[in-house]
Amino acid sequence: MTHEASVTALVEQMRTGAQRPLARLISMVEREESVVPAIMQQIAPHLGKAHSIGITGPPGAGKSTLVDRLTAILRQKGLTVGIIAADPTSPFSGGAILGDRIRMQQHYLDPGVFIRSMATKDRHGGLPPAAKDVIKLMDAAGKAVILVETVGVGQTELEIVETTDTTVVLLVPEAGDAIQTLKAGLMEIADIFVVNKADREGADRLMAELRMMREIQQAPSGWEVPIVATQAHRGVGVEALYDIVHAHQRFLEESGELHQRRAQHRRNELWDLVEHLVRQRLTEHVRQDSALTALVEQVMRAEVDPHTAAARILDDEDMLRRWLLPQNAGAEHGA
Amino acid sequence: MTHEASVTALVEQMRTGAQRPLARLISMVEREESVVPAIMQQIAPHLGKAHSIGITGPPGAGKSTLVDRLTAILRQKGLTVGIIAADPTSPFSGGAILGDRIRMQQHYLDPGVFIRSMATKDRHGGLPPAAKDVIKLMDAAGKAVILVETVGVGQTELEIVETTDTTVVLLVPEAGDAIQTLKAGLMEIADIFVVNKADREGADRLMAELRMMREIQQAPSGWEVPIVATQAHRGVGVEALYDIVHAHQRFLEESGELHQRRAQHRRNELWDLVEHLVRQRLTEHVRQDSALTALVEQVMRAEVDPHTAAARILDDEDMLRRWLLPQNAGAEHGA
Repeated sequence: MTHEASVTALVEQMRTGAQRPLARLISMVEREESVVPAIMQQIAPHLGKAHSIGITGPPGAGKSTLVDRLTAILRQKGLTVGIIAADPTSPFSGGAILGDRIRMQQHYLDPGVFIRSMATKDRHGGLPPAAKDVIKLMDAAGKAVILVETVGVGQTELEIVETTDTTVVLLVPEAGDAIQTLKAGLMEIADIFVVNKADREGADRLMAELRMMREIQQAPSGWEVPIVATQAHRGVGVEALYDIVHAHQRFLEESGELHQRRAQHRRNELWDLVEHLVRQRLTEHVRQDSALTALVEQVMRAEVDPHTAAARILDDEDMLRRWLLPQNAGAEHGA
Repeated sequence: MTHEASVTALVEQMRTGAQRPLARLISMVEREESVVPAIMQQIAPHLGKAHSIGITGPPGAGKSTLVDRLTAILRQKGLTVGIIAADPTSPFSGGAILGDRIRMQQHYLDPGVFIRSMATKDRHGGLPPAAKDVIKLMDAAGKAVILVETVGVGQTELEIVETTDTTVVLLVPEAGDAIQTLKAGLMEIADIFVVNKADREGADRLMAELRMMREIQQAPSGWEVPIVATQAHRGVGVEALYDIVHAHQRFLEESGELHQRRAQHRRNELWDLVEHLVRQRLTEHVRQDSALTALVEQVMRAEVDPHTAAARILDDEDMLRRWLLPQNAGAEHGA
């Protein structure tokens, strides 16, 4: 109860634009899973106003620099900005990431910008597990634009496209060959392509390849994916990118696509949360329920194959009750 | 019943070394999920003899060529080989992949080699969903070595490390910068590093960087990750790689690590299958159960937040019974 009361108070303070309650709520969402539903219920009436933009691409493409420059332009237009920087935590990349953060320092001092580094689930990039909820918190806190920066090539883009309104994919000329076979997949996902470091050799070829792929693969939505050349470190092309991002926002709103995307995102989030809770409860029960422990050990010793064991768990009413209900509820039912 | 009888017959034929029953069983595992547990039960007594080797790395690193050359050496040693080539299906990459397959043609005619291209879940690389079960089929069919080739940078390596006995990570000099921030993650995952195209500029620097990272991050298992230089297209270094792969197999067996890895893989596979089944059953029920449909629609319209909805599904005994039991069982229980 005290917990819920303090959540209510924090949400109210956050809604006034204060940074510290927002930071505290983000930490709670990252650490204390049990309090998340209460927070989400509290902020639900205040959601949906922010425009969330995912910025993804291979390491070294210049994402942080672009986010930095884009933030400067958004601030000039008087828009508040939330930034989520996915951080594949690692003792080795520490230097590089610290460098990025120093570059962002001007924005750290700006009360209209809220920056949060979030660790990815592992050291392999992708979207931090709590990123979706942190976007909601920043939205409820009144940020007009939320930039989500993720590292990765391949599955990462899929995660971001399931999360943000607009997906910007950053490529660099030298990545040309390396991402060759993945480009067609990127074409389905990107709302906007940025070819950064556009002064380097191979930039023209990369732009031409992207244009050719766009010709072949016309987007069903009616949005023709723009291909923007930038040199983010010098600020070249970033204003044009802003205009295009803004145009995409208008397109999403006017076409009804925004409404549809967000509805799909919410449905997928529900299934993801159900999967997560099921796994969490099962792994908790494993420590305490001798029948489940025995089954898992049989699987580990290859005495029961995983398919048969999965069916054994999910085809039996008693097993479901014992192993999937929350532990207290399970106890009440006499498990 | 006829189904199970035909599975038994197919498994028996496959066990004689015939290629066609193996191909048919793989297709069944890829397409007809309901028959998978029956197949897995049938082959369970014949599992665990093959050495499975994941070969992963960014697109363009030369994985197919390396697999081709490694296969030739394995065949010279008299070992049978199964090859799973993950294929991020795409109309655009069709050419490249066809080229790879043509290169492999010598092995297609060899009855001691079984090659299977498998589509990845989407166009973004990663491990094909049925790959784990196909490895088991090839194992039960008597293949001595199973090579699993996947494309990707980032999360893909994690999937492969959860699947095969030995993980080989292929890098190329030009990928040096692009994978900078992900290298530390790769270090945790690779059992063997291969620097392919080792005659190109930057190869020495990449080898030196990898060695330095290995210095800092000593593997807890006691296996010092070898770093092998190859020029796969000319066959240079591939014999050395074979020796190292073989040494790793011996290390896994003698240290007890093989036993441990496989037990962990089986446990993770169980949880993954449970998650998959839960999502599948819920999405099936959505079409037929008006209460669940209503809940999902409320989530899509943002009237109920996903966390609250997930708890509503999983905290209630009646909901679990109605929505998670197989549909027939649910009907018996009066849902």
